[in-house]
Amino acid sequence: MSVSDTRKQEISSQRDEKFQTRRATVPALEEILYEPIKVLDHGFVRVVDYMGDDAAIVQAARVSYGKGTKQVNQDKGLIFYLMRHWHSTPFEMCEIKFHVKLPMFVARQWIRHRTANVNEYSARYSILSKEFYIPTAENLASQSKSNHQGRDRLLTGDEAKRVLQILSEDSEKCYGHYQEMLNEDAAGNKIDESKDGLARELARMNLTLNYYTEWYWKTDLHNLMHFLRLRADDHAQYEIRVYAEAMIGVLQKWCPLTAEAFEEYRLHNTALSKTGTEIVKRLIKGEKVTQESSGLTKREWAELAATLNI
Amino acid sequence: MSVSDTRKQEISSQRDEKFQTRRATVPALEEILYEPIKVLDHGFVRVVDYMGDDAAIVQAARVSYGKGTKQVNQDKGLIFYLMRHWHSTPFEMCEIKFHVKLPMFVARQWIRHRTANVNEYSARYSILSKEFYIPTAENLASQSKSNHQGRDRLLTGDEAKRVLQILSEDSEKCYGHYQEMLNEDAAGNKIDESKDGLARELARMNLTLNYYTEWYWKTDLHNLMHFLRLRADDHAQYEIRVYAEAMIGVLQKWCPLTAEAFEEYRLHNTALSKTGTEIVKRLIKGEKVTQESSGLTKREWAELAATLNI
Amino acid sequence: MSVSDTRKQEISSQRDEKFQTRRATVPALEEILYEPIKVLDHGFVRVVDYMGDDAAIVQAARVSYGKGTKQVNQDKGLIFYLMRHWHSTPFEMCEIKFHVKLPMFVARQWIRHRTANVNEYSARYSILSKEFYIPTAENLASQSKSNHQGRDRLLTGDEAKRVLQILSEDSEKCYGHYQEMLNEDAAGNKIDESKDGLARELARMNLTLNYYTEWYWKTDLHNLMHFLRLRADDHAQYEIRVYAEAMIGVLQKWCPLTAEAFEEYRLHNTALSKTGTEIVKRLIKGEKVTQESSGLTKREWAELAATLNI
Amino acid sequence: MSVSDTRKQEISSQRDEKFQTRRATVPALEEILYEPIKVLDHGFVRVVDYMGDDAAIVQAARVSYGKGTKQVNQDKGLIFYLMRHWHSTPFEMCEIKFHVKLPMFVARQWIRHRTANVNEYSARYSILSKEFYIPTAENLASQSKSNHQGRDRLLTGDEAKRVLQILSEDSEKCYGHYQEMLNEDAAGNKIDESKDGLARELARMNLTLNYYTEWYWKTDLHNLMHFLRLRADDHAQYEIRVYAEAMIGVLQKWCPLTAEAFEEYRLHNTALSKTGTEIVKRLIKGEKVTQESSGLTKREWAELAATLNI
Repeated sequence: MSVSDTRKQEISSQRDEKFQTRRATVPALEEILYEPIKVLDHGFVRVVDYMGDDAAIVQAARVSYGKGTKQVNQDKGLIFYLMRHWHSTPFEMCEIKFHVKLPMFVARQWIRHRTANVNEYSARYSILSKEFYIPTAENLASQSKSNHQGRDRLLTGDEAKRVLQILSEDSEKCYGHYQEMLNEDAAGNKIDESKDGLARELARMNLTLNYYTEWYWKTDLHNLMHFLRLRADDHAQYEIRVYAEAMIGVLQKWCPLTAEAFEEYRLHNTALSKTGTEIVKRLIKGEKVTQESSGLTKREWAELAATLNI
Repeated sequence: MSVSDTRKQEISSQRDEKFQTRRATVPALEEILYEPIKVLDHGFVRVVDYMGDDAAIVQAARVSYGKGTKQVNQDKGLIFYLMRHWHSTPFEMCEIKFHVKLPMFVARQWIRHRTANVNEYSARYSILSKEFYIPTAENLASQSKSNHQGRDRLLTGDEAKRVLQILSEDSEKCYGHYQEMLNEDAAGNKIDESKDGLARELARMNLTLNYYTEWYWKTDLHNLMHFLRLRADDHAQYEIRVYAEAMIGVLQKWCPLTAEAFEEYRLHNTALSKTGTEIVKRLIKGEKVTQESSGLTKREWAELAATLNI
Repeated sequence: MSVSDTRKQEISSQRDEKFQTRRATVPALEEILYEPIKVLDHGFVRVVDYMGDDAAIVQAARVSYGKGTKQVNQDKGLIFYLMRHWHSTPFEMCEIKFHVKLPMFVARQWIRHRTANVNEYSARYSILSKEFYIPTAENLASQSKSNHQGRDRLLTGDEAKRVLQILSEDSEKCYGHYQEMLNEDAAGNKIDESKDGLARELARMNLTLNYYTEWYWKTDLHNLMHFLRLRADDHAQYEIRVYAEAMIGVLQKWCPLTAEAFEEYRLHNTALSKTGTEIVKRLIKGEKVTQESSGLTKREWAELAATLNI
Repeated sequence: MSVSDTRKQEISSQRDEKFQTRRATVPALEEILYEPIKVLDHGFVRVVDYMGDDAAIVQAARVSYGKGTKQVNQDKGLIFYLMRHWHSTPFEMCEIKFHVKLPMFVARQWIRHRTANVNEYSARYSILSKEFYIPTAENLASQSKSNHQGRDRLLTGDEAKRVLQILSEDSEKCYGHYQEMLNEDAAGNKIDESKDGLARELARMNLTLNYYTEWYWKTDLHNLMHFLRLRADDHAQYEIRVYAEAMIGVLQKWCPLTAEAFEEYRLHNTALSKTGTEIVKRLIKGEKVTQESSGLTKREWAELAATLNI
């Protein structure tokens, strides 16, 4: 993971400071607070701040004066009930703030989730570091034939080698030219005194989309779960899915009851359509149903059959 | 302020608990955490949780690895710069959660601010308490003649007395009928065993709009200031303005530098239109400008003259 | 339905005007444009404007230069695919604007849907009409014993009569006092020349929550369906459900393919939890499953059994 | 402007179709509907649909049953009043949908405006065209010394030439490699039958940020003006400002009264801080004020002096 020693030191100093608070506090999350969790080759997510816990959801649902929680069992029952019936507002009462380092093509997908607060490192104002994403061989997949936006089997041999070579060389070369246009070296000194240097907001356009950017990203628990549901899904691109998976790990530390309800009702659930529901009723009665007699298209039938092991 | 002894006890117990945290912590806000601040006759606002402080704004603006803050002077300079130039995203990185008790006609104005999370006490699920708002004599104003949505001088004598009598009597009577329809007394016992009692979701419609409701209301600092700017304004209805004023007090404890910048650039600022700007330039040059020669309508001219003591 | 003759005339005049446009146009919706659809005793919804149609969804999904649509079958396939896989952004490309007249306690539920634009009739600025909601005998339900926020069997006999009497009399009385405090009759004349009249923003607090208000409400098709899914649900209060049902009728005229997909995947679908999915697999294999062996709570098991006719 | 003949034909066919509607219709906007307006070297904006007009704002503000408009003068007065006093909801009642073609580094700034609906051309699903942005010589500015995120004087001679050479060559080379990795030519045929071709979602990461993307972007009039105010500002990057300027031209055709109010109160207005207001009062009285006696920092004083010609 690309976190320089200076920055590791800054993180470490901040972790060393402790304060007293009356606020809801989660020891398991405090444990990893500020610590980067490695994702991809140079990326990370780290929790920078949080508000609330499982009990805060219960408290908000009850508009309580005190802690609002009762026995763990009752709290769990309520949280599961709220999740099952899409009562989303109590989950909005918890908030979390991440610092994320991610390739720009991942950032462009991520930002589509609008109900969040974002502060991104500005390439108008500052110079981007020379850090770019190169997939590992196990993630170098070919274009899917069946699904226009998916991947298929892995590239091998010379084809794989050539792809990795292109990605590395073009990233290197474009960065070299970025510096040349800026006329500024890594230490911030002019390379050629006779030149002005191109404006940063212009020079950046020569970088490729696998360059890393960074942002602070803050959202509430309800919208976090919405993000995780879509981005931890099999259909999500691998390079964003690994961020979602790291964040599910954070969720389990932060709000364990909610994380459990999330897995039960959102992550590993099944959505049956109206027609799908009728089919399942027939199947349960012992009736034989085929695609032809199901009322579903081939594609939908295949999806249903796979889900229910028909 | 109508907080029952049981509830005072719950609040007090929660205040007694202290935890260790690595998160940004604001001692001045911890001091008043959970404590209700009285507003109107039976209402309150109280801070239930918060995330971030002035330093967190600076940290987000710099996408920092550590605390991100420098000397207080530099931090203040940056916060003032961000506020002046409408760089709003760093302010979105702080979050606050209030518990508010407020009359329903105030709640109906408040809820128009959409960028917030809300959990309201449910009158479908529970029975509302017998608590309603009655204005004090100093706030019993007549309808403004000049401004269709404003107030004018105070009602006096018999007219004032009659208004207060109506408001009290109708509130009392409607609540009595609410209980009768519910067929349930304050202790939750059936009043008449032979009756079923009307559904709560229906019975509530007999209450008047001055009845108090309660909610948890959570928002980020940027949107909080947007709310405060509009609701602490002279044109806002008195009954919501007093809530905004109490919350400005909270803001001053929570993020004092931001509160200062807010007062400088949002609360006591002046917005000059394009034409207004030209007029001010002429005035500064020593030119005499009248409404007729100003290019403004009478109303706009009056507003400008009042603002600039012309 | 309470629409005065003057207003019927205004609506009728607007309906008489026709324009030429290059925009996507839906004849079935033009047919009912501006016409109020009666809901409850004095309420209505009417479509005031719309943007887009089924084809516009397809066009946006393809980021097309022209109409973007192909054969109806292909368009339908794509719309069903988008709905099934929660690709919501193409549905956001259609927009609709309603004028709604509704009781205030319904308005308070409705406004919780934040992703919409709202302009409400202002009781600070204007005087509310004497129009209040009284349930019909068929909707006068008692409080549910099993579900804290539900209804049970109907009230009958004297209890029903008494409820209707209370609701009518209190509504009447409060309105009379509202006018007395305002010191203004229906024609806008002072009632008593010696009095000032209470400010409108204050007087309104004496009205009960069954008084009607009105607003313009505008939202995109994705968020409309989210609203309809929650508010047309059995668990929604009857008084808001009837609005949702009227609006589903509008949706069927506006975007018939989307309406069909909405019914298939949102309105009459079944959500199986992770555990529920496992149970269904066992049932399909012919295994006998009881609540005890299901891993579900009694309540969840009852819900599942009801849904799947087990 | 890079719109192929096929696409010009599609646009032209759509423009040829006319429908009858009862909706608010703006002839001046119909005139340019669907027509691309050229921006930068290969970009454009074109209006794809719209809802409402100046009258619709008035209608919503009045919650009208009919057209709601009165004489033009009164409508203008109301629109100016609403704009001046930040009554934003009536402006939210108009909606517009654009199709935009823009470089990816511009798209990354643009998308930060969250209150909009977006459908972007998917580079996971499809292959991006070979179209990239190269600045003209007049826009090839050096980095500002005084403002970290600004531009300064133009690059000249060999330095300018070299920059343009780098940008063109790297864009060309990266695209060539993109195609090689995809193993697919412009006609969609395999280049080398023995290779699989890298997944599109991966290959795209080799493109530079000056490559063009496209999206449908839909927003309401209030949020459009918020976008335009920030992006037509002098401090905005030139490459996004030209889009904002083209869209202001659209606004003038669509809602001329609103466009006028926007220029008066948002685009060419002056925001005086609390301290700034006091200074202006002193200046108007004829008092001499210097930076030292102003209470402002040097930077703020310079800004004020520039604005008011002091």
